[in-house]
Amino acid sequence: MIEINNKVDFIFYTNGTPNTYKIKLILLELENSHGITYESKTIDITKKENYSDEFVKINPNKKVPAIVDQTGEKPIIVFESVSILIYLAQKYNTFLPDFKTNPKENSDVITWSVWQAANLGPAFGQFFHFSYFSPTVQEYSLHRFNNEAQRVLRLLDDRLSVSPYIGGNEFSIADIASAGWLLYLNFVPFYNATKERFPNIFKWLDLIGQRDAVKQVNQQISEGFKNFSTAGIRALFTNDPELINAKAPVGIENVVLKYD
Amino acid sequence: MIEINNKVDFIFYTNGTPNTYKIKLILLELENSHGITYESKTIDITKKENYSDEFVKINPNKKVPAIVDQTGEKPIIVFESVSILIYLAQKYNTFLPDFKTNPKENSDVITWSVWQAANLGPAFGQFFHFSYFSPTVQEYSLHRFNNEAQRVLRLLDDRLSVSPYIGGNEFSIADIASAGWLLYLNFVPFYNATKERFPNIFKWLDLIGQRDAVKQVNQQISEGFKNFSTAGIRALFTNDPELINAKAPVGIENVVLKYD
Repeated sequence: MIEINNKVDFIFYTNGTPNTYKIKLILLELENSHGITYESKTIDITKKENYSDEFVKINPNKKVPAIVDQTGEKPIIVFESVSILIYLAQKYNTFLPDFKTNPKENSDVITWSVWQAANLGPAFGQFFHFSYFSPTVQEYSLHRFNNEAQRVLRLLDDRLSVSPYIGGNEFSIADIASAGWLLYLNFVPFYNATKERFPNIFKWLDLIGQRDAVKQVNQQISEGFKNFSTAGIRALFTNDPELINAKAPVGIENVVLKYD
Repeated sequence: MIEINNKVDFIFYTNGTPNTYKIKLILLELENSHGITYESKTIDITKKENYSDEFVKINPNKKVPAIVDQTGEKPIIVFESVSILIYLAQKYNTFLPDFKTNPKENSDVITWSVWQAANLGPAFGQFFHFSYFSPTVQEYSLHRFNNEAQRVLRLLDDRLSVSPYIGGNEFSIADIASAGWLLYLNFVPFYNATKERFPNIFKWLDLIGQRDAVKQVNQQISEGFKNFSTAGIRALFTNDPELINAKAPVGIENVVLKYD
């Protein structure tokens, strides 16, 4: 059984990866707007802590993020980042229009949040695997997931040409869902995503970048890069031999990815 | 602009693939329980109808399913299958516990619905791509997505050993989300998913199979197999040379997948 410690409103299981930044963002927002409190617990996936008996009780899917809501009589565990966003948005009645009074606006925010979970997240995740973690170069699969990442970015850039925020006219959990992955573009042009190619995504990054919570996460991501070699990933975009890191699949610098 | 025709409550864009069966299921349920009406429009993706100007206005993500809700003053378009499930569940106050009165039960259903969209759907979709549609055998990727499909099935079987339905004690949109992909197991042991290996999933298939809506979709899937060669996919599981279809990547019958 999960015991509640009564010291903070939420326990937040994290490790500083894209899906956890979504939850960091909304917790910071709610700290600013509603004075909520939370404690972060780092789950080191390189030490397989996500497979520990304790953590599997929190999330049987064995992934971060997860939260425990300790504000009620019984603790409530929530996992899957987009489900956590929907849970917190409903609990604090913010970043998600009410269905009863605004069904279309509610649905647009839910749709673009689910779209992130089912399209952007899997595409970017597989792209990173085949760019950086597969032991050998898998040229077909690297092209496949690069193409899908490009499709997703193009669609989002089109969406942001007609809507200031991803879910509609207001900042919402749909922005937070995609921001977990896209804030990185402020520092490294993953997917060859430059301001020239995706101007509306970068305009949106500037817009949400004015929020205190986003500023804090941008700072955290920036500091993360100082201690983490992204050379292998950079090499994909720069073709600079000095940036090629042995961690990337050998020979991957010779794969020429296609961009429109 | 989308015009409403006032003849039916919903327009349902479909093509008889797993994600569309989720929406077929909930529309049949709501037809039985609430008397809703709908019209199905088939989008033939082999003819690229999902790229047509008309359809892209419905779903910029260019995928089925999508719906148009014509019951209000203005039509409301919803895409992403799990977002459509959440929309209809909220609209008719069914298959999803109310957050205000039952936050934990609501969250569990949302979590397992989002889990389907972010885990089960992508794993199974990529597994089919690399089993059946990639022009050449991609052994590494086929193993990768088979392993992920097996992980997802094992997790779901564990979940169904402690909970009669995927989202909790009641039939919900979490069941409908996974059923779109899992009802096929009533007819073909994709992913080597047999009753012996995953008894709780098959117990659940029997349980939900008692519902009229599920019976109708099972019938539709069964009929679909009569007109659609699954030989290439079957060959993966049977190793029967007579079942090997030229549509599967040449040589894929020699790839021995791992199961626990």
